[in-house]
Formats: sequence, structure tokens, C-alpha cells
Amino acid sequence: MIKLDVTALEALPTRYRANLINGITGFKPALLVGTASLGGDSNLAVFSNVFHVGASPPVLGMIVRPSPEGTERHTLDNVLATGAFTLNHITGRMLPGAHQTSARYPRGQSEFRASGLTEEWVEGFSAPFVREAAIQLGLTLIEHQLLQVNKTHLLLGALHWLRCPDAGVREDGSVDLVSLDSQAVCGLDSYHPPSAGKRFPYAKVNQASETQT
Amino acid sequence: MIKLDVTALEALPTRYRANLINGITGFKPALLVGTASLGGDSNLAVFSNVFHVGASPPVLGMIVRPSPEGTERHTLDNVLATGAFTLNHITGRMLPGAHQTSARYPRGQSEFRASGLTEEWVEGFSAPFVREAAIQLGLTLIEHQLLQVNKTHLLLGALHWLRCPDAGVREDGSVDLVSLDSQAVCGLDSYHPPSAGKRFPYAKVNQASETQT
Repeated sequence: MIKLDVTALEALPTRYRANLINGITGFKPALLVGTASLGGDSNLAVFSNVFHVGASPPVLGMIVRPSPEGTERHTLDNVLATGAFTLNHITGRMLPGAHQTSARYPRGQSEFRASGLTEEWVEGFSAPFVREAAIQLGLTLIEHQLLQVNKTHLLLGALHWLRCPDAGVREDGSVDLVSLDSQAVCGLDSYHPPSAGKRFPYAKVNQASETQT
Repeated sequence: MIKLDVTALEALPTRYRANLINGITGFKPALLVGTASLGGDSNLAVFSNVFHVGASPPVLGMIVRPSPEGTERHTLDNVLATGAFTLNHITGRMLPGAHQTSARYPRGQSEFRASGLTEEWVEGFSAPFVREAAIQLGLTLIEHQLLQVNKTHLLLGALHWLRCPDAGVREDGSVDLVSLDSQAVCGLDSYHPPSAGKRFPYAKVNQASETQT
């Protein structure tokens, strides 16, 4: 059994710790973030640090590290310039092209071409979508913060556009990620196709004894 | 194909929209958050809005909605009182007990008992862990914000404790969630066991042509 306290965590080699900490929160969504510069250069980058903030109004959050190692600076610069970004669900067919967007392409070179994926534009929206994506989401920036702990950027976006195949949404509004082949990510580089899930009813206090039988 | 713009999203029935928006970010980690009050009452609640903020220092983020519908207020109150919380990976064997912690138990009633899971304490840490969990993480609160957009709470925690079976961490530090049976969540109620994944090498610009052959 591995047991690490704060001192042992600090003493880990940098690369080992990066792999470990990126994986220990569990599964993450496999998404491509689409943006464009004011000059019209499109950018595409794989992201997994996206999370639900609220449904009413629909708001999502995203963590962007402005690390010199990544292409994320282009993403951040574009979001701050245009106020728009898209999230596009990665399917098994979109690999390995989708992962390839994490390479450090120069600003003028679009990751769309490098990844073999297709740019798609929605009228009135200043960021590109990915045609092949299982779900397309279009967001408008509503808040930008620099988190003091490590100078990471927190972006909050209001959902302004959603495109999803009919088969991907059940009658009650819940999403069927299995039928969409939306991938889950572990760590920085491991993509997992969805497996059949189990749904449980809305939990009530008086169910406790039933579930323990 | 479902296509919803901002007006159509606003017009959706509340429950339908909640299901939809909670699912459209893709897969999320299946975690139990353990906390305790200053009086020693332990609390356990299922959460999926947890995300990676940084590896050096190791920092995680969590979104907590202080909704009157949930048990999350106990979690929030406890974290703010003690400055500590734990994250515990849900495995298939821990279901449906783990999901049952989302029921609205009164403050004095521990969800540990209701869920059939076992409290475990680590010396010097004022929040309980779940013995059965695949991975145990202990965090210390370093930042608390009320997000203005919807009065949701953002908590940032520094990682101070990690426990994981040897088989769950590879030589390079990456985490093998499949061997740990760590579940992925879609929306509010669908739990998915992990499936075998594919790892891709660190992407470089000059790989582009190779990956497209």
C-alpha cells in the first residue's frame, strides 16, 4: 500500500508527481477546447479540467494552466480576446488525432489540420466547433480569475449553444454518454471508452434499510 | 439532432435541464467526500464536481452547491469549521451504498452507517476516510470563494495525504484507475465501471504526419 503524507508528496520527483496528481482525482471528461484569435486563427486543444458549476443558468468551469510547456496559452489568449470557447466531446474515432492537439504548435498553425478534425462554425459564435465531436457546447466567458495558490486561471462560461444527437439525451434530459462513445480520461494520456453504467434512483433517507438488505 | 441556443436552453423544464446540464460535461469522478463537525459528527456525501488545479504543490478544487435539497450544507459547514476534507474513490462494490449518501440525512445521523461503509481515521487529520475506497485523499482547505454567478462555493484544497494500493500506481507515477475499479459518473445518478484505456505518447509537433497515416 502506498501511503504519502505532505512531506513525502513534496519529495516526489517532479514528473512522477505530475503523473500521480493528474490521475488521483479519478476519471475526467475528454474534451477539445476550440477557440479563435481576433485575427481568425483557429486553435484546438485537448482539456480534461472542466466541471459543472450550475444548471440554472447553465454554467461550466475550466482550469487553464498557462504553462510554457503547453499550447494552452493560445487557448487562454483567445478566450480572453473573443470571450468565447467551445467544448467538444472526444469519441474513440477521434483518437489519436484529438490527443495530438496537445503538441506545441506555433500560433499560426491550426491544430484542426494536424489532428485531422473538421472545423465547424455556428453563426454568431466566434469560436470553432469540432464537426466529429459527440457533443458540441458553445460558451461565453462570464468570469476570469487568477488563482493565487499557483497562478492557474479559472474560467467560468455560460452555455449558449448545445448540439447533441437525439440518441444521446433520454426523455428525462439525462445524457447517455455510452451511446455517444464519449471518452473518459485518466491522468494526462489515458483515454477510456465508456462502459455500460447503472442508474440509481434519487436517494431518500428511508431507502437506507432497503439498500442494505 | 438536438440543437439548443441560449433561448431554448432557458426555456427547458427545470428538472430536464438539471439532468441535461449535469451530464453534458462528460464523465466525472465518483467520489465520496468525508468531513466531520467540530463536535465529532462524521458526514459522507457523494460528489463528482472535483477537478485538478495543480501538481506542484498538489491542489484540487471542488464545487459545492449549498442547495436546500442536498446534504451538501453539512459538508460545507464541516469543511469551513475544521479546514479538512477527504476524497474517497467509489468502486463497484461500494454501490449502491455510496449513492445512498446523497439522501438528506439529519445532521446527527452519519451517512457512514446508512451506506454500510466504514469510517477510518488518520492521526492528525480531522476528517474521516472511507476504508473501502480505492484511493483515499486528505485535503486541507486553502481557499474558499462564493462564485457570484450562482452563489456556488468553490473550495481549493492542498493534498496532505494519499493512500493507494501499489497496483494502482505505475512506475512513472500514472494512476491505473482500471485496476482500482474506480467508477466514472455521468450526470447525477449513472455510475460506470472503468474499461481498458489507451495511452498515447507525449504529443510533439513532428508526430502530426505519423498519427494521420
